[in-house]
Amino acid sequence: MDQTPLELLKSKGVDVVPNPYGRKLSEDEIISHLQDIDGLIAGLEPLNGTVFQNCSQLRAIARVGIGMDNVDLDAAKASGIKVSNTPEGPTEAVAEITMAAALTLSRSILPANKALHQKQWSKSFGRGLKNSKVLIIGYGRIGRRVAELFRVFGAQIMVCDPLIKPKDLRNDLRLIELQQGIESADIITLHAAGNDPILKSAEFKAMKKGVIILNSSRGSTIDEKALIGALDIGKVASAWLDVFPEEPYTGELTEYDQVLLTPHMSTYSVQCRKDMEMAAVNNLLWDLGIE
Amino acid sequence: MDQTPLELLKSKGVDVVPNPYGRKLSEDEIISHLQDIDGLIAGLEPLNGTVFQNCSQLRAIARVGIGMDNVDLDAAKASGIKVSNTPEGPTEAVAEITMAAALTLSRSILPANKALHQKQWSKSFGRGLKNSKVLIIGYGRIGRRVAELFRVFGAQIMVCDPLIKPKDLRNDLRLIELQQGIESADIITLHAAGNDPILKSAEFKAMKKGVIILNSSRGSTIDEKALIGALDIGKVASAWLDVFPEEPYTGELTEYDQVLLTPHMSTYSVQCRKDMEMAAVNNLLWDLGIE
Repeated sequence: MDQTPLELLKSKGVDVVPNPYGRKLSEDEIISHLQDIDGLIAGLEPLNGTVFQNCSQLRAIARVGIGMDNVDLDAAKASGIKVSNTPEGPTEAVAEITMAAALTLSRSILPANKALHQKQWSKSFGRGLKNSKVLIIGYGRIGRRVAELFRVFGAQIMVCDPLIKPKDLRNDLRLIELQQGIESADIITLHAAGNDPILKSAEFKAMKKGVIILNSSRGSTIDEKALIGALDIGKVASAWLDVFPEEPYTGELTEYDQVLLTPHMSTYSVQCRKDMEMAAVNNLLWDLGIE
Repeated sequence: MDQTPLELLKSKGVDVVPNPYGRKLSEDEIISHLQDIDGLIAGLEPLNGTVFQNCSQLRAIARVGIGMDNVDLDAAKASGIKVSNTPEGPTEAVAEITMAAALTLSRSILPANKALHQKQWSKSFGRGLKNSKVLIIGYGRIGRRVAELFRVFGAQIMVCDPLIKPKDLRNDLRLIELQQGIESADIITLHAAGNDPILKSAEFKAMKKGVIILNSSRGSTIDEKALIGALDIGKVASAWLDVFPEEPYTGELTEYDQVLLTPHMSTYSVQCRKDMEMAAVNNLLWDLGIE
């Protein structure tokens, strides 16, 4: 890993105590290791009222990442602990892997690659992204960047997001209702927040035959049974899933060659980790009042 | 396939005779089918002096694609036959599949996908394209478009092409000698014309450990044995090959999981075929003097 974030801390005179286990700490472990500690660069450790009550010196927590599910924000506030995260950090990495999946699936690379590794020369004909209709569900930081990248490849972009108004979009992007977008999309990509299911059997039924589904948001946004049914009849040509209702995932979709599966690794790029770690270090220095 | 190109021909009053076999014709077949024909929309059929002497009515040949290896241009000229191709047609499709490969390999998606299909949850850490150093060898139409796309993803671009001068490049692209480019690149992508080998053992030896190689140009531009040696010692982390010294390819690289293999299908996208067919139809109408 890149040492720059660590070196920045040290250059400010900060005494750095590394996580001795190289894995997520339990509640007991984190309490034991936070004695006499002012600031924490945090992963997904449990950071709750019990921890805060037993770590009286802790003044600041800097999450490397966006998610705050592991931090009890009310308890932190009550204990006077400042909490930060790195909302910008994952954008590029998630958009990048989304485009990797979109391009790979839309050009039907996986079956051709598999066949050629079995010494079969079998060209596949993909649609490609140019002039494809892409529905982007959820137009936050990541959805916006994904839209930009699809535009560069010449796709036609439809955006579905209840928080967005037409004037928020550049004029070659189209704001659309979910139902209408689903009916005309060649590619549907999920970047919504929240855990509510968005694509269920009714939505799969309304889709065009041969659609490609991409999900790097939350596992719960797609009804897996409905997706499997749509794959079985060819309604969905192929899909990429990076998130699952239960992780690690070992379910039925592992049997489907046309589904590209990655294990919740959309932010796993060297550059992304460095960007997020640098942001977290800067947040921590700020919250501790170190200049 | 899209019917627009065919409909354009018919709308101009052209009497269209389709290829009855749906495959490449032999010399005898092409001669037999070109009797009383004025213009040919051509694939890779042999179009030589013998054909031209036996098809006296033929006045124009419009190739769907770039390559002219199957057309004897001197013989065509001597017979007064106009010949055209569609040099712009494949650019977007080839650039698109090149980016598919670059993103997929740089984010280490293939091993993660394979593992998860075997129910193993194994995250891989990729470099990603942002701030990666990309060497583009050959800066024609395709090389330029590939450079644009890598730029959008935040890569640092080095260009190697003996026909290009520094003033031909925008100032955030760097013109570089092959040797120097090879020593510093994280990704090397080949878009050169010609059949001379470019990456041989000396070049692989000079590369950084963990480099990614992409080839959609010609099979002969990479010394396969040298590539295999570099893969075996991890010098080359992964590669994508769409072209091979001999096709269909059934060689040793089919044993390498870290090599993405596609069967010369870089132009196989629906949009690309339509673009090239439309261009060929327009070329043919022009050369036959039909408005």
